[in-house]
Amino acid sequence: MSRPSRPVPASPPIPAPSPSSPWETGNGADPTTPPSSVIVENISPRLDCGRYPVKREVGDRFVVSADIFKDGHDKLAAVLRYRTREEDGWREAEMRYVDNDRWSGAFELSENTRYRYAIQAFPDAFASWRDGLEKKHAAGQEVSLELREGKLILEEALPRADAVDRATLEAAIAAIDGGADQGTTVAAVLDEAVAAAMRRRRSRVGAVDSPVLEVVVDRVRARYAAWYSMFARSAGTVLGRSATFAEAAARLPAIAAMGFDTVYLLPIHPIGTTFRKGPNNTLGGGPDDAGVPYAIGSPDGGHRAIEPGLGTLEDFRAFVQRTEELGMEVALDFAVNASPDHPWVSEHQDWFTVRPDGTIQYAENPPKKYQDIYPIDFDTSDIDGLQAELKNVVDFWIGHGVRIFRVDNPHTKALPFWEWLIDAIRADHPDVLFLAEAFTRPRMMKTLAKLGFSQSYTYFAWRNTKSELTDYLVELSRTEMADYYRPSFWPNTPDILTEYLQTAGPPAFKIRLALAALLSPAYGIYSGYELYENAAVRPGSEEYLDSEKYAYRPRDYHRPDSLAPYITRINRIRSEHRAFRELRNLWFHHIGNAQLLCFSKVERDRTNPVLVIVNLDPHHPQAGLTWLDLWQLGLEHVGPFEAHDLVTDTTYIWHGAENFVMLDPWVEPVHVFRLRAL
Amino acid sequence: MSRPSRPVPASPPIPAPSPSSPWETGNGADPTTPPSSVIVENISPRLDCGRYPVKREVGDRFVVSADIFKDGHDKLAAVLRYRTREEDGWREAEMRYVDNDRWSGAFELSENTRYRYAIQAFPDAFASWRDGLEKKHAAGQEVSLELREGKLILEEALPRADAVDRATLEAAIAAIDGGADQGTTVAAVLDEAVAAAMRRRRSRVGAVDSPVLEVVVDRVRARYAAWYSMFARSAGTVLGRSATFAEAAARLPAIAAMGFDTVYLLPIHPIGTTFRKGPNNTLGGGPDDAGVPYAIGSPDGGHRAIEPGLGTLEDFRAFVQRTEELGMEVALDFAVNASPDHPWVSEHQDWFTVRPDGTIQYAENPPKKYQDIYPIDFDTSDIDGLQAELKNVVDFWIGHGVRIFRVDNPHTKALPFWEWLIDAIRADHPDVLFLAEAFTRPRMMKTLAKLGFSQSYTYFAWRNTKSELTDYLVELSRTEMADYYRPSFWPNTPDILTEYLQTAGPPAFKIRLALAALLSPAYGIYSGYELYENAAVRPGSEEYLDSEKYAYRPRDYHRPDSLAPYITRINRIRSEHRAFRELRNLWFHHIGNAQLLCFSKVERDRTNPVLVIVNLDPHHPQAGLTWLDLWQLGLEHVGPFEAHDLVTDTTYIWHGAENFVMLDPWVEPVHVFRLRAL
Repeated sequence: MSRPSRPVPASPPIPAPSPSSPWETGNGADPTTPPSSVIVENISPRLDCGRYPVKREVGDRFVVSADIFKDGHDKLAAVLRYRTREEDGWREAEMRYVDNDRWSGAFELSENTRYRYAIQAFPDAFASWRDGLEKKHAAGQEVSLELREGKLILEEALPRADAVDRATLEAAIAAIDGGADQGTTVAAVLDEAVAAAMRRRRSRVGAVDSPVLEVVVDRVRARYAAWYSMFARSAGTVLGRSATFAEAAARLPAIAAMGFDTVYLLPIHPIGTTFRKGPNNTLGGGPDDAGVPYAIGSPDGGHRAIEPGLGTLEDFRAFVQRTEELGMEVALDFAVNASPDHPWVSEHQDWFTVRPDGTIQYAENPPKKYQDIYPIDFDTSDIDGLQAELKNVVDFWIGHGVRIFRVDNPHTKALPFWEWLIDAIRADHPDVLFLAEAFTRPRMMKTLAKLGFSQSYTYFAWRNTKSELTDYLVELSRTEMADYYRPSFWPNTPDILTEYLQTAGPPAFKIRLALAALLSPAYGIYSGYELYENAAVRPGSEEYLDSEKYAYRPRDYHRPDSLAPYITRINRIRSEHRAFRELRNLWFHHIGNAQLLCFSKVERDRTNPVLVIVNLDPHHPQAGLTWLDLWQLGLEHVGPFEAHDLVTDTTYIWHGAENFVMLDPWVEPVHVFRLRAL
Repeated sequence: MSRPSRPVPASPPIPAPSPSSPWETGNGADPTTPPSSVIVENISPRLDCGRYPVKREVGDRFVVSADIFKDGHDKLAAVLRYRTREEDGWREAEMRYVDNDRWSGAFELSENTRYRYAIQAFPDAFASWRDGLEKKHAAGQEVSLELREGKLILEEALPRADAVDRATLEAAIAAIDGGADQGTTVAAVLDEAVAAAMRRRRSRVGAVDSPVLEVVVDRVRARYAAWYSMFARSAGTVLGRSATFAEAAARLPAIAAMGFDTVYLLPIHPIGTTFRKGPNNTLGGGPDDAGVPYAIGSPDGGHRAIEPGLGTLEDFRAFVQRTEELGMEVALDFAVNASPDHPWVSEHQDWFTVRPDGTIQYAENPPKKYQDIYPIDFDTSDIDGLQAELKNVVDFWIGHGVRIFRVDNPHTKALPFWEWLIDAIRADHPDVLFLAEAFTRPRMMKTLAKLGFSQSYTYFAWRNTKSELTDYLVELSRTEMADYYRPSFWPNTPDILTEYLQTAGPPAFKIRLALAALLSPAYGIYSGYELYENAAVRPGSEEYLDSEKYAYRPRDYHRPDSLAPYITRINRIRSEHRAFRELRNLWFHHIGNAQLLCFSKVERDRTNPVLVIVNLDPHHPQAGLTWLDLWQLGLEHVGPFEAHDLVTDTTYIWHGAENFVMLDPWVEPVHVFRLRAL
């Protein structure tokens, strides 16, 4: 039974958002606090009850949904409220009813900053009254009393109306007072112009506010990037000594030509000599050994200094400038480690764990000992001083042109530190990005992303089979993870040379490159990949033989069989087809062969579909029949369509869902089709 | 790398829980507030970020799980803390590590009250140190420095130890100081007694507290009940006048004999005469018509009074007493409606909506009008007075022996009112139960349960096919709903005579009764069901012809074809087999016929399995092969087993998962097997 709209007290002022503490967003009472009768619950997106922000990128349309309803039969209205962290007042977008008590609204994310959003929902007395009036009049009932009730609702809204709406509302009131026949009067007050004016001026008595939630909006590079990882010191041509930044810069045009947009440098700081490792991680290395770049700190300085063999800060700036001239940017390693020779060790002994005999605790994983590394103790009583110094380090490199930091092993440092640091840096520099290098348990991987890391390494390197890849990509692209975890796919890293790459020759390198680059909008390779480097230090190990972590390693990048042309082709396909810039658009299609993986991506509005078919078997040709979900490709209502292979520039005419495919890994293991209706 | 356990400051006092506001439980920051490095998240059970309590029953073991982890490599410990709403201090149960960062703990719910629970997790410095010592000593390393570190940890714990633990810890310290050989010393400090003492006395520095959550613990009747619903006024034998409570009481022995435990009376209050309805909901009824019991209130009184035709309050008390003597209890209807003649209308006009002409708004669903009912206006400025009066009504009937209330159409009254009322009543009378009679949209049904209703009506009446029943029961028993929504299954109600019952004869009544009683631990029937009443007021309607809502309706319960013996048999099976008292133990098994439904229930620890097979087709015999999930039945390692049909007292010997079944609806449409290994 519907309760009539009786005169209500004046609408209260729209409540101001509470002050900007990041913690307020976790106040979380879901759906609302009493005593409202309006329920707003199951808000999406919302991460861990609002404890963490979700992530999006500039240019996205941000859609928010919720279950909204109340007791009784009143009509409801709801608005999506939003503002950037810099703004004081809310902007609003009307939400619309979808189905089954679900409502939805949206707004554009135009700025690289942190937005807040919330829902306000309230009974819409005018809409309830209007609906009842319409039905009663249509049933031929006498409605003079209802018209008098409507007049009270209109009058209550008048003080909130501007001149235009006031004129509309007053005209409706005049019609009620005018004494014309019922049909004429009802038509006047049911006029859509009156309803529109009331939507703008309606009372919000009984409104309920959802908790305030947050969305971090990054530049698009956070989602879509192609990284090239290198040790600058290996980029020279002379054996046995470090390359300089000037020599390393000579590699940049080739990297740019391959289509990469980010050059990631492993640590470039002075390396300690105490307990320095020799080649292949042997003990007893000497000062002539290259040393491990993660053993940061020497008399030449710590995290703000440059390893002398590489050059000077000015040389680094020149390297950054050259990178930018080529349309790329530099990502720097941020490893919160110290060698025993780091200036911190003498200046801030309290940042380390001092044992009962006065020595500093080195890293260990009992019974293993890592005596060349002193871990930082985040339980230090000087946590403020430590955090300030680490932030200063990041700020220092930002001052030298760096906007991306790859963070080494963040899961072994204090989680609250990362949450604080990343937000503190981005409050001043919202364009700065942090990539979490954690290869650890799933919960920790996810938590680092929730705490603020812009991008995350993944388990991709070890996902080889069709079911492994499908399950993992569905988790990344279709579950809640897609709201906060931006994957970066790496077929190899300086620490990871997989068994697949070790054992399956050049086809394996093509396959894993294509999978990384085409499944994930962000991916990267570690130098040497283009030369099929696949020798492990020993059987069963994923460590490279003669790893650059312990030695200089000049390479001949001009080998005629280099993978560089293939990489160039794949990166060009990525850049020319916007569908590859996204992850949520990923869709797996059935193909009747367990060694063939078939997936598509489309642009927003399901346009410009691309279809990728990969032979996961690096040894044998594989053939199968596709069964395409044509509705996912926007091709459900077309006849024959063109499948143009962007790898080989070959065109096929396909008919419907079922199409034959064969891929020989020694010819081309991967099809990348651009699909077009004929 | 593991950080050694350095001396830590004294453990802080265990934080006291915050004061008892029901709203504090929704503080919801998930997982924790900074700056702790310990993460506690994804707590289960936890309803809507802690906004609502979950539900359990007295005698349950309450299991709580969470993801618990921290940065670095420290060992962790976690305790589950709990207390009743009446207690001040926390009790604690140690949580154990399950897998993949998941932890679990449990405690017994022994009281009919509201419990709070929370998790406290913290680094376990002693456990980390002990683990490292063990590994280093096993690897033959020298550990004198480690032993000195361990001594500091032990000493820090001493002030918290009682005499027994103090002796243990001091002995370990003495061993470290004693200068024996390393093997002897290490063995002494690794002794399990030392570890046990440290588990009791360990430091909780770095501890994190989860939000405080709640679980409402009801008496078992909230979950497991068999209701019989009746209009007391129809229980007589004289046509054309109301039966008295004394006459109605004569029906009680037969109801008890059928095995019901709850007798639910539709409203028993004085009925208004203004706009009183005639038979079959016709307009223009007079004072000689029975009137609709939901049109409550006349000069004889309102919600605290008894309709004179039924007798007096003393007669009602006698009825309640007789019910209790027979081992049953009375459930009373609570309908927040008023007829135009209700005393509230004159005494509290402000509890109703007054229209501009001074009249009171009657119920309507435009263009339909319900002039015999005045809805209460929960937006009244005298909401405090209104709520107090309604609580007084409930308290009044509690004072007359009622402990169960069936609430009419709660979704058309203010939701905050119900949340307040139910908790306010139960704070004094935790054994009082409320059944929500809402047949409306899914979100609202669920929200009423979340807000506090002990039991809820369901969509069962309209779920007829195998897939409908399976999907719905899986939702009720296996999703989050099982934490808060206790279903009550009704094949019929005074408002619901389904098409299935109208058209399919006595087999339909057997089938729907067995489904309701055996699928759901709580179920009920409305009187007349045992007589196969199936005449609708008109084709396409679910209303009964000559409905008791508008007329007295004496019945001949002694018909020889009555379903009462079958009902008796089914209720006895329910009471003799404890597996039917639960819902979460429901499991559907494959059976190769879309008209056959096969499900089982087991007691806790998978003992005493019962297997039910229902022919959903009331017209034809149906046969099929089962494929039993024997591991669900605890029969996976046995040979032949006995399947004893409790309906017909017939025994079969079955072998394995595959067994032939045929059910003729005109003989017996339902098997209820007790399964026993031979």
